[in-house]
Amino acid sequence: MAKYVFGVDIGGTTVKLGLFDVSGNVLDKWEIPTRTEDGGKNILPDIADSVLAKMSERNIPKTDVAGVGVGAPGPVDGAGVIHRAVNLGWGEMHLKRELSSLLDGMRVEGGNDANVAALGEMWKGGGQGHANLVAVTLGTGVGGGIIINGRILTGATGSGGEIGHIHVEDHETEACGCGNYGCLEEYASATGITRLAARRLQADDKDSVLRNGEVSAKTVFDAVKAGDALAIEVAQQFGEYLGKGLAVIAGVVNPEIFVIGGGVSKAGEVLFDYIKPAFDRTVFHGCRNTQFALATLGNDAGIYGAAKMVLD
Amino acid sequence: MAKYVFGVDIGGTTVKLGLFDVSGNVLDKWEIPTRTEDGGKNILPDIADSVLAKMSERNIPKTDVAGVGVGAPGPVDGAGVIHRAVNLGWGEMHLKRELSSLLDGMRVEGGNDANVAALGEMWKGGGQGHANLVAVTLGTGVGGGIIINGRILTGATGSGGEIGHIHVEDHETEACGCGNYGCLEEYASATGITRLAARRLQADDKDSVLRNGEVSAKTVFDAVKAGDALAIEVAQQFGEYLGKGLAVIAGVVNPEIFVIGGGVSKAGEVLFDYIKPAFDRTVFHGCRNTQFALATLGNDAGIYGAAKMVLD
Repeated sequence: MAKYVFGVDIGGTTVKLGLFDVSGNVLDKWEIPTRTEDGGKNILPDIADSVLAKMSERNIPKTDVAGVGVGAPGPVDGAGVIHRAVNLGWGEMHLKRELSSLLDGMRVEGGNDANVAALGEMWKGGGQGHANLVAVTLGTGVGGGIIINGRILTGATGSGGEIGHIHVEDHETEACGCGNYGCLEEYASATGITRLAARRLQADDKDSVLRNGEVSAKTVFDAVKAGDALAIEVAQQFGEYLGKGLAVIAGVVNPEIFVIGGGVSKAGEVLFDYIKPAFDRTVFHGCRNTQFALATLGNDAGIYGAAKMVLD
Repeated sequence: MAKYVFGVDIGGTTVKLGLFDVSGNVLDKWEIPTRTEDGGKNILPDIADSVLAKMSERNIPKTDVAGVGVGAPGPVDGAGVIHRAVNLGWGEMHLKRELSSLLDGMRVEGGNDANVAALGEMWKGGGQGHANLVAVTLGTGVGGGIIINGRILTGATGSGGEIGHIHVEDHETEACGCGNYGCLEEYASATGITRLAARRLQADDKDSVLRNGEVSAKTVFDAVKAGDALAIEVAQQFGEYLGKGLAVIAGVVNPEIFVIGGGVSKAGEVLFDYIKPAFDRTVFHGCRNTQFALATLGNDAGIYGAAKMVLD
């Protein structure tokens, strides 16, 4: 019976690594730089070296390790192949097989970073006790991860849970990063909230504390908490888009709970005050009791979820 | 090793039953009336009697039967409990346990009828060869069933795949049967298409063959095929709503294929000409190659899928 498991979260600038016991207690965590040069060819060897060095440092024999789970920023299919990870310089890469071969055949599981983070929140974060959940990451973009019966919904091409790019607005004139117009990400990400605020500020000369300094998702929600009427309008717009989007997702996969994370979620439960009205108004009655919670693992969700993948 | 399996599809007026071999060849199929009086208390005993009579008629011993799968019109949770089946007169009912006890402990599996039909289309219908699919039933309402890795996505409360009630229109003034406003079902069902056509006919006095007789989903698509300009406008509206709705569903669960069934699907592949433009325009790029097919099992999808549930 293995005692340990590694969780690895590959980001565009750093790789986070964690050593866990099989109950999910983190024993050690550290980072190494992500070497994206030369098509990212050093990334997996660097990870393998770091894992093997940790085992050596702690005198952990290979037989005591259940395996290594890896989350990566791109679509990962059910076989553990990642298709295009722009931020890492990778084209198609058999993540699972390549890393396993660098680790002398050790078990490796791979998944998309947002999906893996969702699994982490289920295991040890805001979604504990729920086997059916949707994790929503409101950061620079909007990411999502769907867990059904305790497992990641990968989808046919690794695009399961790509909820940032569901279409929510027919009349958008600025393109989303994905090339489409009117994606949820254009209104519910940190960038999106900033853009909604900038548009609102330009619309007329209504007074607002947002006119006196930097406009960001953080300053918008700080202003909301201070009762700023214009900021509240922006939060209502944000909540209208996100609430309706989550209601659609609820009607499709019927999760027990939405776990909201990412930088924007630092605003706290006030977010739910703006998301819930549109959610409640438009959701199918059978999904009306879906719960909402904040993510609790922050940037560690990825290493937790990666480790959990190996233990299933 | 069992040789046979029964599939049962409980409808509001008749119960369809099928006897299959374990490869999915239908050996016999028949119907009995659905006795909804007295809170539907006779329905399960009638089914049990009919199954046992068929076994007796064909000299099939219990040990040769893998079990009985049942699809029913209501939300069925992962434990086989149906929560409210209005058309049958049922409140909460432990479908799986009750029927099994009437069948002397024989294995019973239960699911929502739309989900079960989706499984049938995967096994022997329009979705063969695909383990990840979304079945869409365009009938009086819009039903849906989602299959992930060969299994029904049930959801937390049995509302998984309730895609008829995803919100697609903010400016609707007529309520959907569910009580909300702007559900997909209000535009993409047979009833919805008829309503769109009626609205369009009232809008002005543009010439159309639809002014000369009954207006229904069938006459609308017959007129589309005959080149009627007004009917084509109606089909475009239908396709805009359904195409955008399916694009959102694709971004959430990333199926390999959509299998379109129900009465409206009798119009044939012309439907895809109207669904695809909005789908292609709004879908996440990772899901752009999602296939579309017509359902092929018609009203038998339920008995096939019900049987398949027992074989998993």
